[in-house]
Amino acid sequence: MLRVPFPELLETLQRILLQLGFEEQRAALCAQLFAESSRDGVQSHGLNRFPLFVTTTGNGVVDIHAQPEMSGGFGAFERWDGKGGPGNLNAHHCMARAIAVSRQHGIGCVALANTNHWMRGGSYGWQAAEAGVIGICWTNTSPNLPPWGASETRLGNNPLVIAVPRPEGHIVLDAAMSQFSYGALASYRGRSELLPVDGGFDAEGNLTRDPAAIEASRRPLPIGYWKGSGLALMLDLVAATLSGGWATWQIAPTPERETRLSQIFIAVDPLSTGQPDSTSIADQVIGHLQLPLKHSEEKIQYPGERVLRARRENMELGVPVEPSVWRQVQKMLD
Amino acid sequence: MLRVPFPELLETLQRILLQLGFEEQRAALCAQLFAESSRDGVQSHGLNRFPLFVTTTGNGVVDIHAQPEMSGGFGAFERWDGKGGPGNLNAHHCMARAIAVSRQHGIGCVALANTNHWMRGGSYGWQAAEAGVIGICWTNTSPNLPPWGASETRLGNNPLVIAVPRPEGHIVLDAAMSQFSYGALASYRGRSELLPVDGGFDAEGNLTRDPAAIEASRRPLPIGYWKGSGLALMLDLVAATLSGGWATWQIAPTPERETRLSQIFIAVDPLSTGQPDSTSIADQVIGHLQLPLKHSEEKIQYPGERVLRARRENMELGVPVEPSVWRQVQKMLD
Repeated sequence: MLRVPFPELLETLQRILLQLGFEEQRAALCAQLFAESSRDGVQSHGLNRFPLFVTTTGNGVVDIHAQPEMSGGFGAFERWDGKGGPGNLNAHHCMARAIAVSRQHGIGCVALANTNHWMRGGSYGWQAAEAGVIGICWTNTSPNLPPWGASETRLGNNPLVIAVPRPEGHIVLDAAMSQFSYGALASYRGRSELLPVDGGFDAEGNLTRDPAAIEASRRPLPIGYWKGSGLALMLDLVAATLSGGWATWQIAPTPERETRLSQIFIAVDPLSTGQPDSTSIADQVIGHLQLPLKHSEEKIQYPGERVLRARRENMELGVPVEPSVWRQVQKMLD
Repeated sequence: MLRVPFPELLETLQRILLQLGFEEQRAALCAQLFAESSRDGVQSHGLNRFPLFVTTTGNGVVDIHAQPEMSGGFGAFERWDGKGGPGNLNAHHCMARAIAVSRQHGIGCVALANTNHWMRGGSYGWQAAEAGVIGICWTNTSPNLPPWGASETRLGNNPLVIAVPRPEGHIVLDAAMSQFSYGALASYRGRSELLPVDGGFDAEGNLTRDPAAIEASRRPLPIGYWKGSGLALMLDLVAATLSGGWATWQIAPTPERETRLSQIFIAVDPLSTGQPDSTSIADQVIGHLQLPLKHSEEKIQYPGERVLRARRENMELGVPVEPSVWRQVQKMLD
């Protein structure tokens, strides 16, 4: 395993983005979001995704200069048009808006249309938690998930993020509505590992733990079978109806062409709503969850705990990178 | 199977509530919420749950005269104290508040502390959809679900409801974070059926489709294993921190004593936010979902579709009731 110091990873990505023509501040933030994903142990949406992102800046999918514009809204709700700009910059901007609106109205909700892949959804949960607010956000995706009972992909896996701030360690869930995201399938395949539980169907329609078979069939399982299927549909419906943007059925199914996504960003500010006890309540919930188990040495992990551990380790030892991807990215430098 | 005309079911429940001392309007609404659940095919939280509800009005859990009071808030966010009143009346009131606030601010969010079991969560999704707004709500519960990797129940199954209005038929998801709610397990057991997929562990720790074995072990599976485990935790955290009320770990584990729940109600009004196209977007999403499947005669169902079919059938033929429960309830009449 190759490890690269975080500042080196960040600077490399930033220089490539500047070469591509990104403005300086936007290059810095975009590189930061990619580098932090790898630093936090989510390589699939960090460095490993960077080459595909660069491809989409050159094929008409991502307009690197496009800035999101507010297109409507009322009170604590805002509607934004992502203008086809970089998905992570648009998402970061819209979560920042939701946070700002929540300071004014207790809660803020931003619906974003016409954006691109937001890379790691958890980034915007951490962003909310670091601002001291509860954050909830989700995106639709291209059709990559068959509804329960079907073999055709008519749903997106529509990742959902929920974040609760806590000084001892923010609690951040980042979960696609498929049992394994395509990024997770690729990671297992890359490590030549089987999935820990059935993750989908193979080409013959049998349940399987083989990640490559599921990538080939494009038949991952929704979480909880019919339940995740229903949840994925609702997330798409709410994102598209509130943003006025595209729904999953309209979105091109190939990763290089996936665009015009719809997203929702919600923030609630416990302090401005007069709830000073939220930290101690969250501490108690996590404390009780992690009481020693009677019949096991294991400790139950809370969402986000593994990220914090990876972050500490990777800041100290360097960020793990796939050597082939790292070489590919370094070659992009002039 | 015994069928009872809806008006007879409604009137019977209402008369019993009046006997118990409910005020007239509150008896009418409470009876309506129970009767509509059975009418909509959700017997587990309709008539079948009514005897337990009556028990809790007599054992100090439910104060039938308590009315919810606003305890704080700011802008589009309100915090309410349920005062230990009937859970379905409190929930109906708070969704009504969220809807009203959404008319003023685009979005409305109500956090409710100190309430009781809301019975069928879907009721409040339908309530939002019938008012023409998108509704999202959830409740915490007593600890009835082991976190993934543990055998001790430290999470609630914390049902989540998402509703999108649509004149052709509202789209309403009502999903507990366990693969099968305890109500669903009881229904399968009552019909002497096995679950369609593994629903939890038996006393020996083996995965099983036997509903009774899971009821006995109290080890249902979270949807999507670690993912539903994480989702259940987040829903509890957000509900407790925003309401300032109890979290799952504090709630008594027996159904007769389960009280002081925390709940969240969110409404977004597409019209007041200037989004007149939301209906056609939803129609298109459902239309595309339900295109004929290539290799099957089946049609994919959307969340809420089965409810509408049950509603039509049961209004015409009478509401199916379990004879023993119906006799038990009729005996409550003076």
